[in-house]
Amino acid sequence: MKLKIIKIGGNVIDKQENLSAFLNDFSKIADDKILIHGGGTIASKFGKQMGIEPKMHQGRRITDKQSLELTTMIYAGLLNKNIVAELQSKSCNAIGLSGADANLITAVKRPVKDIDFGFVGDVVKINYKTIYQLINIGLVPVFNAITHDKNGQLLNTNADTIAAELAVGLSNIYEVELIYLFEKDGVLSDLENNTVIAEIDKNNFKKLKNKGIIQDGMIPKLENCFYALENGVKSLKIAGVKYLSGAINKYTKITL
Amino acid sequence: MKLKIIKIGGNVIDKQENLSAFLNDFSKIADDKILIHGGGTIASKFGKQMGIEPKMHQGRRITDKQSLELTTMIYAGLLNKNIVAELQSKSCNAIGLSGADANLITAVKRPVKDIDFGFVGDVVKINYKTIYQLINIGLVPVFNAITHDKNGQLLNTNADTIAAELAVGLSNIYEVELIYLFEKDGVLSDLENNTVIAEIDKNNFKKLKNKGIIQDGMIPKLENCFYALENGVKSLKIAGVKYLSGAINKYTKITL
Repeated sequence: MKLKIIKIGGNVIDKQENLSAFLNDFSKIADDKILIHGGGTIASKFGKQMGIEPKMHQGRRITDKQSLELTTMIYAGLLNKNIVAELQSKSCNAIGLSGADANLITAVKRPVKDIDFGFVGDVVKINYKTIYQLINIGLVPVFNAITHDKNGQLLNTNADTIAAELAVGLSNIYEVELIYLFEKDGVLSDLENNTVIAEIDKNNFKKLKNKGIIQDGMIPKLENCFYALENGVKSLKIAGVKYLSGAINKYTKITL
Repeated sequence: MKLKIIKIGGNVIDKQENLSAFLNDFSKIADDKILIHGGGTIASKFGKQMGIEPKMHQGRRITDKQSLELTTMIYAGLLNKNIVAELQSKSCNAIGLSGADANLITAVKRPVKDIDFGFVGDVVKINYKTIYQLINIGLVPVFNAITHDKNGQLLNTNADTIAAELAVGLSNIYEVELIYLFEKDGVLSDLENNTVIAEIDKNNFKKLKNKGIIQDGMIPKLENCFYALENGVKSLKIAGVKYLSGAINKYTKITL
C-alpha cells in the first residue's frame, strides 16, 4: 500500500491564496495521504497582538508557558481547523490531529543541558496503528506540530521532524513517500538563478555543506530526510509548493 | 449498546481544579462515552488581551470574523487539546474533535432576520456513523463547539445544542444517556436553599416557567432536553459537576 506524507511550511500557510491552491492539489491525490503543517508567521502576529514577546537564546526560540498556549491556539485551533474545513469543502475527508489526540505522537520535553528550551518536545513514539485505523475508515489525517508527553503536558515540536517521524512509523505498514514542500522549487545550488539540485545523497550533502551551498535551516531539514530514508521511508523529495499541481517539474530527490 | 454523552459548562472549565476532578471522574466511566465542552470565560480573557471587544445586540452575542477566530483558537485549540492531553494522562484514549473534523457536524450559518448573528451555526447533520467508527476503534470523542458548513466556513455553535444533536444522532445506534453538568446541583426551585427539583417533565416545565422559577438560560437548556428526549434519547439529567464522582446524589431528571 502506498502512502504520501506531505509537509507544508510557513510560507505556504501565510498566504491564503497559496494555501488554497495547495489544498486543492492535495485533495486530488488518489493515494492514501497525510498532511503536516507548521505555523508560519501568524503565531507571531497574534503573539504581538496579545503582548507576548518571543523569547530567544542565541537565535533559538524558547517556548515558555505563554508561547506554548499561543502555538496551541494557533496551530491546533485556528490553522488546523481552517485547513480541515477547506479540505472538507473540496471533498477531502480531513481530520485535524495533534499528537495528543488518540495518543498519536508521544514526545518528551527536551532535556535541559546548557539551555532550557521550555515546552519543546522530542518525538519518542508514533502510534502508527491508530493512524492506520483512521486512514482505513476513509479519513485523511491533518497534523499540526503540537504533541504531548502522555502525562498531561502539551509540547511544541518541529513540524519537519514530525513529518519524518510519522513517515518512519508508517513505513511499518505502508510504502511511504515523504514530500517536503516550501517556498523554493527545491534545494538550490544557486539562489540567483533558482537552480534546483536534482538529487542529493549523503555524500554530496557533506560536500555541499562544506562549500556553504547548504546552510542554516536546510541542514537539519536534510538530516531529517536521511533519518527517514535510513529508517524505512521509500522515497523523499524536497519541492516547491506548486509541485503537486504538476505545473513545475523541478524538485530535489533525496537518497542515501 | 449504551453510550453516555456528557456536556460540561463554562464554570467547570474556568477552574483547573474543578476540571481536573471532573476529567478524573469522566475517565472512569466504563460505558462508551463522549464529552462536549463549552468555552467558559477564558475566550473573553484572551479576547481582552488581544483587544477584541465582544459585540452584543440586546444582550445576545454577535460572532464577527475576529470573534470566530478567537473561539476557534480557544475552544478547538487551547481548551480542547489541554483536555485531551489530561484525559490521555488518565488512560482515557481521548480524541479532540470539531464538527469540521471528519465532517462530523454540519451546520448552516443562522439566517439573517432582524439581526445578523454572524458566524453562528445551527446544526443540520450529525455524521453518527463516523463517530461510531471512532468509538469502535477505542477512541473517546471530545467535542468543542466549532462546526462547519461543508463549504469551508467554520461556525460557532451552542455547546448545549451540539450535545443534544449528538445525542439524537447517536440514538440511531446506541441507547444514549445525556447528562448536562454545570455549577449547580441540578435545576433549582429555591436558590437560597439549593433545593434541586427531582424531575421535570414538559407539563411542569410550563408551570415552572410561568412562575418564574425556570428562567433565562435554563429555558433553552430545557428545550434542548425535550428535543433530545422526543428524538430518541433514552435518559436525560441535569446535574452538578461532582455528580459523576458519586459524592452528590442530587440531580434533576428530565422526562417528557
